[in-house]
Amino acid sequence: MKELRVKPGRIRTALESLGAIGRGPSGGLERTAFSAADREGREWLKAAMRSAGLAVRTDEAANIWGLRRGEKQKLPPIACGSHIDTVPSGGKYDGALGVILALEAARVLAEHGVSLRRGLEVVSFSAEEPNGFGLSTFGSRAAAGKLKRSVLDGVRGPGGVLLTDALRDAGGDPLRFEEARLAPGDLAAYLEVHIEQGRRLEDQGIPVGIVTAITGIYREEVTVTGEANHAGTTLMRNRKDALMAAAELMLAFEAICRDAPAEETVGTIGRIANHPNAANIIPGEVQLHLEVRGASKEAIAAVLDAWRERAGGIARARGVRLQSVTLLDQPPVPMDGLVAEVCRRQAERLGIAAVPLGSMAGHDAAHMAAITRAGMLFVPSIGGRSHCPEEESRLGEIEQAGNVLLHALLALDRQL
Amino acid sequence: MKELRVKPGRIRTALESLGAIGRGPSGGLERTAFSAADREGREWLKAAMRSAGLAVRTDEAANIWGLRRGEKQKLPPIACGSHIDTVPSGGKYDGALGVILALEAARVLAEHGVSLRRGLEVVSFSAEEPNGFGLSTFGSRAAAGKLKRSVLDGVRGPGGVLLTDALRDAGGDPLRFEEARLAPGDLAAYLEVHIEQGRRLEDQGIPVGIVTAITGIYREEVTVTGEANHAGTTLMRNRKDALMAAAELMLAFEAICRDAPAEETVGTIGRIANHPNAANIIPGEVQLHLEVRGASKEAIAAVLDAWRERAGGIARARGVRLQSVTLLDQPPVPMDGLVAEVCRRQAERLGIAAVPLGSMAGHDAAHMAAITRAGMLFVPSIGGRSHCPEEESRLGEIEQAGNVLLHALLALDRQL
Repeated sequence: MKELRVKPGRIRTALESLGAIGRGPSGGLERTAFSAADREGREWLKAAMRSAGLAVRTDEAANIWGLRRGEKQKLPPIACGSHIDTVPSGGKYDGALGVILALEAARVLAEHGVSLRRGLEVVSFSAEEPNGFGLSTFGSRAAAGKLKRSVLDGVRGPGGVLLTDALRDAGGDPLRFEEARLAPGDLAAYLEVHIEQGRRLEDQGIPVGIVTAITGIYREEVTVTGEANHAGTTLMRNRKDALMAAAELMLAFEAICRDAPAEETVGTIGRIANHPNAANIIPGEVQLHLEVRGASKEAIAAVLDAWRERAGGIARARGVRLQSVTLLDQPPVPMDGLVAEVCRRQAERLGIAAVPLGSMAGHDAAHMAAITRAGMLFVPSIGGRSHCPEEESRLGEIEQAGNVLLHALLALDRQL
Repeated sequence: MKELRVKPGRIRTALESLGAIGRGPSGGLERTAFSAADREGREWLKAAMRSAGLAVRTDEAANIWGLRRGEKQKLPPIACGSHIDTVPSGGKYDGALGVILALEAARVLAEHGVSLRRGLEVVSFSAEEPNGFGLSTFGSRAAAGKLKRSVLDGVRGPGGVLLTDALRDAGGDPLRFEEARLAPGDLAAYLEVHIEQGRRLEDQGIPVGIVTAITGIYREEVTVTGEANHAGTTLMRNRKDALMAAAELMLAFEAICRDAPAEETVGTIGRIANHPNAANIIPGEVQLHLEVRGASKEAIAAVLDAWRERAGGIARARGVRLQSVTLLDQPPVPMDGLVAEVCRRQAERLGIAAVPLGSMAGHDAAHMAAITRAGMLFVPSIGGRSHCPEEESRLGEIEQAGNVLLHALLALDRQL
């Protein structure tokens, strides 16, 4: 029997077809969670699942599952998918690619009449992206049992729409929301293909990344308190300028992140608030939102420790005070070693170059890891761009990742 | 005849009495331009002028003038005063002190029956401070003929009040507004006492500053354009972080200002706007408001030249673009040499220590300099504080400045 292969033409057609849903005037996709475009995307997906012979079910969190039954109905199925919602003005690949490749794998199996021992669940999780309801990775967190029913209470999104109403309109059930939860053992594994959203694969010219861990994210708000004063009458030597102190703190932070031993350790100061923020008043107080991401807790802690030491010295020298409040401390999530090893071996066997790498963005797989063996494959992003209309991945590389996925699913079905 | 002296008790009483008008719950004065409290302050001042025997007139710009007639009615009078409006949550000394010392000088002359050749005009200019109508040094600019009638059109202030209505309520005349203008030659000189609002006099322990020039102020908005990107998936080496570039630009600017040869050259970055200003996105664009003040055009230009050179290098190294728009380019205004010399000599004769120094804030005297010989005396500000409820000057030093003012007025009357 000729070895199974995904069909790039069919993948491209699906990407174009789903990628036409929610396209805004600027060319970006506006298929944000629970919007009308998202609901249209859901209908497209359910129809596509049905035409691939899958049994479609929408759970209480409005996650869409399409089951291809296995020979041994008692064995837990393997799940494979991602999400179809987008950020505002997003691209066609982020999320959609993982769902479409899972669907393609199911189609290839069906057209070749391949029977697996286990069921294959093609899944699209609800509301993965940051959204107007303030709840990202909503569907996978619900499936992992990480969200209580009460998180829905009173939450409103764009246009004042209640989340409970939006969820119901998408096919969910707010009253029985917690029943979306899966128990450990309900799935044998979860495998997700996603665009890298960075340039590491492209820079190395490698088509497939095998994710080792999903980055930990630490965020804190640092308040720098100096002394607001008259911008004219206060001599340079008499100033306690909170913004200048903040500038020095920012550069120290940047230098520490640049010097971190792992390139997957990154730090960003994305938000700043300056007070009183008037041209003729020396700033008296500044808030910075400082974020560190890393593949291990130790890597994140090393940056923070070094920064705190430098920051203390800067604050003393400038006569300003520092206060920090932790906003988020999400530990790194290692991907399953067996799943990763299966992917590595299949890529090798197929002659497809693949490298291990950390995911520096969060993904549904991070939550699925709490209840099953989870793994991820990355496809190169052209120019590292994502969350924008220009987001793109090459079809040839998508095809290679799709073949690794297909054969990893076959291998997992045999080995698990 | 015993030499004339101002009376500190009477000065203190006037400061307390005017300083009680407009006091807010926090203890700060809310006597902002054309507010109800400002109007109450105007009534207090007019009554005080009348009780000092002055002929009170409110001009079309609502400036209040109180004339003590001289022997030679054909000689132009000498004007002396400041303003009585405050910033929000302001102090009792900024502006009010100059009006009260001018009034005190008139009272001393009256109670000793001293005749001057020239008239003495005690003046309080309207709306000197930044205010909700967006027009500071409003009254002195009108008197100097720098404001057209059309600047009033459609301008609204706090609560949507039309400036034309506010001006009329304060005793001005919006229809004949330009008639507030004085011609060169209408006044023989203008002398203003003001608090220093800095720490130079206090640091040297000297009670009187004789102002050499009013600072020039240059402001520009600098836009730093980098590349917004995902805070997780973009490696440190692939970033064009506009905020980090801005931090480096800010510190370079601070270093250049600190190293400026004259301590009166100061630079401030008081405003910053960061885009998109989200914790998980690398900043793509930053605007900075950069201000330089100095006693000469050359001093300001030297800072800007040095900064532009450094900034260009930083932008190239970081791969960001810089664009600058000039927002304000107000040249320094030298005070009149003769007036300053008269003040210096009188201080010396009275045994009162006085030093020349630049004014690093703007004042009404800067505009009066366009139409007459203008001079200023500074009184130390405790801790350099101003524009706050804690703003204070010592009565003993106020008294010394008052006596220099009184005798400078007498000497100018003889010499001009």
